[in-house]
Amino acid sequence: MRLRHKPWASEELERHPEIVIPAPAEAKGNWKDIFGNVHPIHVEVGTGKGKFVTGMGGLHPDVNYIGIEKYDSVIITALERVKEAGRENVKLLKQDVSDLLDFFAEGEIDRIYINFTDPWPKKKHAKRRLTHEGFLQMYQKVLKPEGEIHFKTDNQKLFEFSLESFANYGMKLQQVSLDLHASNFEGNVMTEYEQKFSEKGMRIYRCEAKYRS
Amino acid sequence: MRLRHKPWASEELERHPEIVIPAPAEAKGNWKDIFGNVHPIHVEVGTGKGKFVTGMGGLHPDVNYIGIEKYDSVIITALERVKEAGRENVKLLKQDVSDLLDFFAEGEIDRIYINFTDPWPKKKHAKRRLTHEGFLQMYQKVLKPEGEIHFKTDNQKLFEFSLESFANYGMKLQQVSLDLHASNFEGNVMTEYEQKFSEKGMRIYRCEAKYRS
Repeated sequence: MRLRHKPWASEELERHPEIVIPAPAEAKGNWKDIFGNVHPIHVEVGTGKGKFVTGMGGLHPDVNYIGIEKYDSVIITALERVKEAGRENVKLLKQDVSDLLDFFAEGEIDRIYINFTDPWPKKKHAKRRLTHEGFLQMYQKVLKPEGEIHFKTDNQKLFEFSLESFANYGMKLQQVSLDLHASNFEGNVMTEYEQKFSEKGMRIYRCEAKYRS
Repeated sequence: MRLRHKPWASEELERHPEIVIPAPAEAKGNWKDIFGNVHPIHVEVGTGKGKFVTGMGGLHPDVNYIGIEKYDSVIITALERVKEAGRENVKLLKQDVSDLLDFFAEGEIDRIYINFTDPWPKKKHAKRRLTHEGFLQMYQKVLKPEGEIHFKTDNQKLFEFSLESFANYGMKLQQVSLDLHASNFEGNVMTEYEQKFSEKGMRIYRCEAKYRS
């Protein structure tokens, strides 16, 4: 994603603590209080400009969504979107996904979405891929037993790597699609990237990976 | 595959018991004697016209290959190929894969190849797909611990199904390729189907699934 410097973003983010949760360490274990209900919690890691969480929040009012994004200049757009749509079931964290264990208690969340994440194509950077074993271990700690990861990408190599990573970690696979937009999958909410890539005729890959209890 | 009636095929197959093993129940547990060495044994289920096993047999003289194919009119071409190439490390079985346990003892084989098998697209026929759980259980009985299945297909839906089936059975995945001929995979031997489909520009999908010990 191209980052533009937006010096005003930081202040604007701080002005909306009801959406961009300011002290996630205090939120840990208390997300039901923050949302004010006991609905399931779905987290998108690397939420970018927030099109996905905002769209999903509208489609599924009985689910709470949390989008995590570390860049001010990107998450600011997500904030605008959530604000404009008036989505009370969507919150944002301006944080690094690597610190996930600081934001959530054990078994506090129900599902993780990973959409169009950085493929880190060089082998020496494999550990940074959000579907690497190290991340799968981390997600498992904050997910409920048999929690699911829903994963989409346009990057063939990343998808190949991720299928291996999920299976080798012992996870089950379901809803594997090697050409999402040509399939009859229903309820798909597109991200910014997805819209752009699929308009160019590129294949979108998708799967759901489920932890074994 | 289009089947042509070849009334002479049956006799010709019987005329070459050194290649088309006539009494597989007697061969069970005795394949090392049949090949006359202790090389690893790789089995192709649904070997068709035998281009793959003949090619692999030439590339890997230190591996023994067994191709299983139930149709006279198809395996006859495999016989011609093996004969012409003078491949002593390639044998054929004119049998139904469903009877696999009748031909091999526990742990007698090292690897199974499944190439361009019938996708059985209707849900009610899912059990007939050679990557269905029922077959994975059967293969496991005749494979060594941590034995592998090497799988190729041009059929997207069958590949999606198979990835799920392998992972859900608890197998590891390696060498997943969503576009084999555009990858840098080395040592690929093409089947008849593969050559035809890839010449039309269709993607070939491939993966290796490994049993856990």
